[in-house]
Amino acid sequence: MQQGKQSIRFEHKPRILEAASVTGEKEGQGPLGREFDEIEKDPMFGTENWEAAESALQKRAAERVLAKAGLVRRQIRYLFAGDLLGQLIATSFGTVDLNIPVMGLYGACSTMGEAMGLAAAFIDSGNADYTLALASSHFASAEKQFRFPLEYGNQRPYSATWTVTGCGAVALGKEGGIAAISGMTPGKIVDMGYKDSMNMGAAMAPAAADTILRNLEDFGRTAEDYDRIITGDLGTIGQEILIAFLKNKGQDISDRHMDCGIEIFDAESQDTHAGGSGCGCSAVTFCAHILPKVKSGEWKRILFVPTGALLSSTSFNEGKSIPGIAHAVVVEAL
Amino acid sequence: MQQGKQSIRFEHKPRILEAASVTGEKEGQGPLGREFDEIEKDPMFGTENWEAAESALQKRAAERVLAKAGLVRRQIRYLFAGDLLGQLIATSFGTVDLNIPVMGLYGACSTMGEAMGLAAAFIDSGNADYTLALASSHFASAEKQFRFPLEYGNQRPYSATWTVTGCGAVALGKEGGIAAISGMTPGKIVDMGYKDSMNMGAAMAPAAADTILRNLEDFGRTAEDYDRIITGDLGTIGQEILIAFLKNKGQDISDRHMDCGIEIFDAESQDTHAGGSGCGCSAVTFCAHILPKVKSGEWKRILFVPTGALLSSTSFNEGKSIPGIAHAVVVEAL
Repeated sequence: MQQGKQSIRFEHKPRILEAASVTGEKEGQGPLGREFDEIEKDPMFGTENWEAAESALQKRAAERVLAKAGLVRRQIRYLFAGDLLGQLIATSFGTVDLNIPVMGLYGACSTMGEAMGLAAAFIDSGNADYTLALASSHFASAEKQFRFPLEYGNQRPYSATWTVTGCGAVALGKEGGIAAISGMTPGKIVDMGYKDSMNMGAAMAPAAADTILRNLEDFGRTAEDYDRIITGDLGTIGQEILIAFLKNKGQDISDRHMDCGIEIFDAESQDTHAGGSGCGCSAVTFCAHILPKVKSGEWKRILFVPTGALLSSTSFNEGKSIPGIAHAVVVEAL
Repeated sequence: MQQGKQSIRFEHKPRILEAASVTGEKEGQGPLGREFDEIEKDPMFGTENWEAAESALQKRAAERVLAKAGLVRRQIRYLFAGDLLGQLIATSFGTVDLNIPVMGLYGACSTMGEAMGLAAAFIDSGNADYTLALASSHFASAEKQFRFPLEYGNQRPYSATWTVTGCGAVALGKEGGIAAISGMTPGKIVDMGYKDSMNMGAAMAPAAADTILRNLEDFGRTAEDYDRIITGDLGTIGQEILIAFLKNKGQDISDRHMDCGIEIFDAESQDTHAGGSGCGCSAVTFCAHILPKVKSGEWKRILFVPTGALLSSTSFNEGKSIPGIAHAVVVEAL
């Protein structure tokens, strides 16, 4: 490794053994609906409150990825997991029954990138035979945490995104599997002084651009070296900013950029405005929609860049800006 | 590494190059007061609100550890950091100016163990030349987040702990330095169904016991192989439970157990009841009080086990239990 670089090239290319996605009904009705492993029509997931519902999502996704990979819980050395709620409460109660050592992570909606990168790093270094990475969000627990009670029925501007109800989980190992993680680029926090919590795509786009540029520079690549560069939840407005920003820096990604937030919903018929968002957005889109295209060889190499907006209701009420962060992983066909 | 084990033995024994601690005035008046690098008398740290004060704490601790280690920011490959607040808002604003790629972590008051373990793992695997680990808490931001507005002046039961205002930061590298990290034991979430948020020591003790037992088993050690086994913030009540629990499992740690929460305050004169708590409690006690004794060789090998209580005001109000978690690192004299 060279001093000052931000990326890691994984020497042993840890393998993605399997992935699983569990979503809510609205996600199931969207363009990717047929690709999810499990769609639950009960928004409460049979529990008593929204937080417990999100925990149930995590538990189901973790159990499903283990079953798909033919692994049992005690084989998993470490779990890297997170969600959007204060004190990661969905993760605490969602993963306790797995009885696997857990590293709690918070990167807002970039958490799946952080989790996959760390989970791959622990495989690559020989410190684990198998790891799990997962991230979740739930529309109703997020609205309660960050915005208004659902009963209030507030209007949403067109720049707002819709938090995805879903959990994506991947199981990683040393060999076999369906794809490889060949590198990671953990992101810096980028604060451009942006303050509109109803337009988070704009707040996150500079962080996404920063991580993508560092990835290209560190690996000596251009945008053409990736079949797709896929951000988490910039939505339509953030996408425009990202593409313009990178063009200005000499990288045209317009023909290969994809955003999970844009893919997951049909904005017009589903009334989701600028797109989907939440840790679960990029996590389930990766597991259900992106990974199969890498597995099939349709895409040889992609850059997966989940994006996070670092705000809380407290920081928002105190008039603070919304810094962004984006953690990238390089995923390659076998 | 053997399948099913929970610990990692670091082959290259990453070095702790330096550590820094910044605290509030009350901590400065306690038994460890003369050992902290910096004591700030203004609880607002010159800022406008408690969250910004906690961010200022982080920034000062990070800058001070860099100065002590003779490093500049761009030499640090990754920062592993966290705090207690919803969406890690103290960390987002406390570390943004460092311009270092950051992995946001949440392990409640166990965060310093998680951060030091991950920061050491990235050095050990050759993926980073230098890393930073830090964790913070602030009495007032924590009271606001978890309990009551300070103005309410609520009574606190004797089992309650006092959240430490402080940030501890360590700089890690490959060689030189003042101590080594020879291993880590990431913890599982342990839920014994305990529900009293004013007695968190009792909620965390089973998780501490679990991590300590796994560490001893994985490394083939007994308690006597450690000069001290040091938990984060069990306080006096949690300590009793831990010692009794471990005795029951055949490990007597009573002559070598230490708890940062008990050390940091004088419970009688400072009216802190069961002890100190918060991410900052174990972080500053490690940096200011524990590490110097390893550096001097007074202690050859210690087990540092920060302990976390996984609750939020939402989970508490919903009547949920308080699961615990404890992440351990093994620190050795050079």
